[in-house]
Amino acid sequence: MSEKETSPAVLEFNPLNSLVQEGFWDSFSSLKLDKLGIDDSPISITGFCGPCSHPRGSNYLRLSSESLPLDEQSSITSHGNRNKCPVPGILYNTNTLESFHKLDKQSLLKAEANKIWGDIQSGKALEDPAVLSRFLVISFADLKTWSFRYLVAFPAFDLDPPASLVELKPASDYFSSQEAESVSAACKDWRNSHLTTDVPFFLVSVSSDSKASIRHLKDWEACQGDHHKLLFGFYDPCHLRNNPGWPLRNYLALIRSRWNLETVWFFCYKESRGFPDLNLSLVGQALVTLSSGESAETVPNSVGWELHNKEKQVLQSINLANSMDPIRLAASAVDLNLKLMKWRAVPSLNIDALYSVKCLLLGAGTLGCEVARTLLGWGIRKITFVDYGKVAMSNPVRQSLYTFEDSIGGGEFKAVAAVKRLKEVFPAMEPSGVVMAIPMPGHPISSQEEDSVLADCKRLSDLIESHDVVFLLTDTRESRWLPSLLCANANKIAVNAALGFDSYMVMRHGAGPTSLSDDMNKTNKQRLGCYFCNDVVAPQDSMTDRTLDQQCTVTCPGLASIAGALAVNLLVKVLQHPLGINAKGDNSSSSNRGDNDDSPLGILPHQIRGSVSDFSQMTLLGQASDSCTACSETVISEYRERGNSFLLEAINHPTYLEDLTGLTELKKAANSFNLDWEDDDTDDDDDDDDDVAVVM
Amino acid sequence: MSEKETSPAVLEFNPLNSLVQEGFWDSFSSLKLDKLGIDDSPISITGFCGPCSHPRGSNYLRLSSESLPLDEQSSITSHGNRNKCPVPGILYNTNTLESFHKLDKQSLLKAEANKIWGDIQSGKALEDPAVLSRFLVISFADLKTWSFRYLVAFPAFDLDPPASLVELKPASDYFSSQEAESVSAACKDWRNSHLTTDVPFFLVSVSSDSKASIRHLKDWEACQGDHHKLLFGFYDPCHLRNNPGWPLRNYLALIRSRWNLETVWFFCYKESRGFPDLNLSLVGQALVTLSSGESAETVPNSVGWELHNKEKQVLQSINLANSMDPIRLAASAVDLNLKLMKWRAVPSLNIDALYSVKCLLLGAGTLGCEVARTLLGWGIRKITFVDYGKVAMSNPVRQSLYTFEDSIGGGEFKAVAAVKRLKEVFPAMEPSGVVMAIPMPGHPISSQEEDSVLADCKRLSDLIESHDVVFLLTDTRESRWLPSLLCANANKIAVNAALGFDSYMVMRHGAGPTSLSDDMNKTNKQRLGCYFCNDVVAPQDSMTDRTLDQQCTVTCPGLASIAGALAVNLLVKVLQHPLGINAKGDNSSSSNRGDNDDSPLGILPHQIRGSVSDFSQMTLLGQASDSCTACSETVISEYRERGNSFLLEAINHPTYLEDLTGLTELKKAANSFNLDWEDDDTDDDDDDDDDVAVVM
Repeated sequence: MSEKETSPAVLEFNPLNSLVQEGFWDSFSSLKLDKLGIDDSPISITGFCGPCSHPRGSNYLRLSSESLPLDEQSSITSHGNRNKCPVPGILYNTNTLESFHKLDKQSLLKAEANKIWGDIQSGKALEDPAVLSRFLVISFADLKTWSFRYLVAFPAFDLDPPASLVELKPASDYFSSQEAESVSAACKDWRNSHLTTDVPFFLVSVSSDSKASIRHLKDWEACQGDHHKLLFGFYDPCHLRNNPGWPLRNYLALIRSRWNLETVWFFCYKESRGFPDLNLSLVGQALVTLSSGESAETVPNSVGWELHNKEKQVLQSINLANSMDPIRLAASAVDLNLKLMKWRAVPSLNIDALYSVKCLLLGAGTLGCEVARTLLGWGIRKITFVDYGKVAMSNPVRQSLYTFEDSIGGGEFKAVAAVKRLKEVFPAMEPSGVVMAIPMPGHPISSQEEDSVLADCKRLSDLIESHDVVFLLTDTRESRWLPSLLCANANKIAVNAALGFDSYMVMRHGAGPTSLSDDMNKTNKQRLGCYFCNDVVAPQDSMTDRTLDQQCTVTCPGLASIAGALAVNLLVKVLQHPLGINAKGDNSSSSNRGDNDDSPLGILPHQIRGSVSDFSQMTLLGQASDSCTACSETVISEYRERGNSFLLEAINHPTYLEDLTGLTELKKAANSFNLDWEDDDTDDDDDDDDDVAVVM
Repeated sequence: MSEKETSPAVLEFNPLNSLVQEGFWDSFSSLKLDKLGIDDSPISITGFCGPCSHPRGSNYLRLSSESLPLDEQSSITSHGNRNKCPVPGILYNTNTLESFHKLDKQSLLKAEANKIWGDIQSGKALEDPAVLSRFLVISFADLKTWSFRYLVAFPAFDLDPPASLVELKPASDYFSSQEAESVSAACKDWRNSHLTTDVPFFLVSVSSDSKASIRHLKDWEACQGDHHKLLFGFYDPCHLRNNPGWPLRNYLALIRSRWNLETVWFFCYKESRGFPDLNLSLVGQALVTLSSGESAETVPNSVGWELHNKEKQVLQSINLANSMDPIRLAASAVDLNLKLMKWRAVPSLNIDALYSVKCLLLGAGTLGCEVARTLLGWGIRKITFVDYGKVAMSNPVRQSLYTFEDSIGGGEFKAVAAVKRLKEVFPAMEPSGVVMAIPMPGHPISSQEEDSVLADCKRLSDLIESHDVVFLLTDTRESRWLPSLLCANANKIAVNAALGFDSYMVMRHGAGPTSLSDDMNKTNKQRLGCYFCNDVVAPQDSMTDRTLDQQCTVTCPGLASIAGALAVNLLVKVLQHPLGINAKGDNSSSSNRGDNDDSPLGILPHQIRGSVSDFSQMTLLGQASDSCTACSETVISEYRERGNSFLLEAINHPTYLEDLTGLTELKKAANSFNLDWEDDDTDDDDDDDDDVAVVM
């Protein structure tokens, strides 16, 4: 700022400073992430300025969160606000620091100055004087670290030769007290009208009877003749008394160009506590040398990059991380990776669909942990774990949500420890845990147990109803039966992952049997199968009499990471697919991918099976079976009609489900033909690997 | 125990109790896991007994860690120990609780009794009287929870009609004081000789001149005639005075069967403070009814299942978990899953090769975390992280070793936080962390930086030398160059994992170029390629001027889980392969899998590439290139000859490596033929996805 005594000859101006509030960069980050992506076209922004009303707010052009064109009405919100007169600006944000440094600052400044010159020449500046003060920001926003580097310019014409200052004095000294009173009143009216309050350039006309009026610039011609004093007023943002503020520079250029005046009386309007203050306001007389060859084509030189200590451009930088709530910061950081995916890789990714989805994880073991961790990565926040087990000492090295401490003293419940860990990893998570065993068919119970088992059935049903997606991640086949049935009944997305010793299987269940009659043509559209659709035996007790190494945990380490990651990626594709749960199964090997070509994330298969033995992986397709013990219409109808008595029969009578669905008959017929049915009870039966036969 | 007054007619015996020490089950767990696996054949064990020497140790047959046949010499270690006279036993451990309950206890007891009867009939019992006292344990060992259920039997014949007791008195009352003195001295000698100290059945012969001698049973005939008193002595484990101890039962059966005696004088030998105690010792007279039809075929009935309160068999159980050091418990639990894999799935798995391997992880980001977690699961304990970054707020949801807390206040160094977390997950881990950046080619440095960059090169080289395996998990291509070179130079196993947006690549590097001249025929054996073998450009600065979304973290969540799991499974196969780093690359699609058919874990490919877009995955094979900028003989020789000056040139001069390896010439030639070289700098360049072209 120029505070030294000016020479009588040269008129100097107090330069503007930029005051970029954190909210500006905060909002810009959102805009960049959510809408702009890699698009680095300049965007129109709005700065805010006003007459100086306090030394502490002096001389600033402010940028706030309202400066950005977030919505269509954003420019309207600031209109009519007396302390936030809009100043049009432009923001050049680059995608890399290298591009930022390579920007041609002189050209950019010149381009903005040209706009002002054009508006002066066209007369637009008379209609809307706000365009006389433009500004320009160049920036590099590092959204990963919340740090922002930027430079601001306030383009101003460098008149050649420069204007000189004849005199400058407080307005109260210039006007007679009667005039001053009238000027004050007129200014007050101007500032109080929402039509004029943010019009920063105006005429002050004082008639010979000391009556003052404030007029629009475009009324200059009309003001000629009948006035005693005619001053060019403007909102001076600066509280200093030695020089007028920066807006006068382009104002003089307008005045000289438009009206060819050599002597200009100007009025630096300032306020105090919201009222015109003629002691603070200044009146000055400037002499302008007319340039004969001036035209629309010969734009005066311009200056205006913000300087520090009047010397050189200083790269400004701000890091929001220090001032932000750490949890909000973390949430933003986590969103970042997802939003960056939209920039180039998957522009159509619907992130909101992920944020809001509620996932129920049945099983918080090796698979449950991996599924939860991948859900975290995909931005999913609502996760409910169901598990009745406690953290055993062998768990933490394979179950990535637990630590040694969780396993000592008998172990914390997994459903409790998993919730605690998710909050530790990311405090914005909304996890919950339910310690509960899943009732299983073919595991007979005593009559005393009936009430509690049925209560568990009810609880599971309620949980499934209140979630959008159910992951089946338990360690037995039979514990997946009831959830499979309930998902088919409630038409919820079910994703199933299961491990063999060195192989894995991930599948999504089709829609429930009753979903089709509503909105789809049943004959045209076959449902996708569920986990039990290709079984010829009903699920029953598979746990009794298994040796240690036949239990589920004897798998190659790492299998669960693969299966868990695939399961979540499969879910994400379902959620992003227009048909959702009804999406047909794509097959990578078939050239005709059906109606799913438009899925932004690639194909959406029904099943994925792979093995770390030969590192193979393939997608498979299996349709729903009419004899399925979990998802067939027969079973669902029976469940709906008979409720608890159906459940108890399925739990207590191993053959009930087979009888109900006709599997018993099917098996008899098959045996009579002497087919080689796979025996589910052979020694090599690996529950999770072998029980999902597939029809291609 | 029978403490009531016995009827004069029936001789009752104080039953033995089992005292199974924790060490027994501890050692058995190891034996089961490491050697037996699912083999549930009965195994020979040894119990320990001795004459009662203190009421508190009375009447016990002890089982300790020495009871198991761990090594060939285990039965020898206890031989000659006066307080641990070996008793032969047998252990039936079942693999499931159901099998345990189904065991036919009567038959098992009978089988052991038959052995004793056979030894009596064959005369073996005279040569080695220890076989008169056998025992039997049936158990179910739940190795997951360290709980053990078991029942012990001490088979004893039920003579019909039973023997009757004429009198029973302290030995000091029975012998004259002179005789007693001599008997004491003779017993002391017997007990002090390592040849006889653990022979629990013997003859006490007292001549008419009151001189006593202790003789072997087999000398019974020789003792006839010259003795005044001849008693059947045995180590009585019981301190009670009303009845003789359990060993006398089978002893009487032997005596009756062998020598057809009706009146038997027996001597219950007991000690006090290590010396014979004739006040404590008992002498009794038993009457045995001879059975005329007795033969080898007509075995007497047997009893002997351990009873509690003389009433019923009580299933004993012990849980070691409560008394074990939690960290040791955790370590055992973790081993369990691996050892269980050996039982059935991969009997040839060499777990020790995994325990001892030292892994260097270059990069502790998304991939580094997943690799470390999978290594944990595979039992690998020595992990060193190299990373110069700090935990950012966006990291914890994707980098599974970090929490929110690690990211606040600027973030902990990843190499530090990862080490801390591994210890929290599993205290037996031996992780370490190095905060260091990896010098990169084509990233010129100033002369002031040279010393520190060269020190980093040296440090990296030392780290690679001191580890067995190097994982390349950094987020740029060029940071993998120096480690690739150093691994080729030191002939270390290098495993490389890299992510694209929705695709992943995992590969192992071949052996170094200098390894072949030594032990293999160079013309016959081509080396496998490294990460840079198929590039036609040298690695150079790829980080400058990349937009946020072009950086490595913009990948589908879950990709790193898959790639990390595959990378570790690939390593495990290399470690288990007889040729290790020199193993050829298998291909799943080729029917001829070369010399790797015997790999217990399936095929061992060179590269695996996959995508979550179409859920495909395949294995690939690429040979080493003579023009490779990282592993070719040209480059390795140059590095060995020129050392630091070579490194500086590679770092500072982007074209140096291409000139050196002839890539420059190759490119010129190619350009002159107007081939469509893939441009590494196109917009769609995805570093991690595209730069590993593969020759099939």
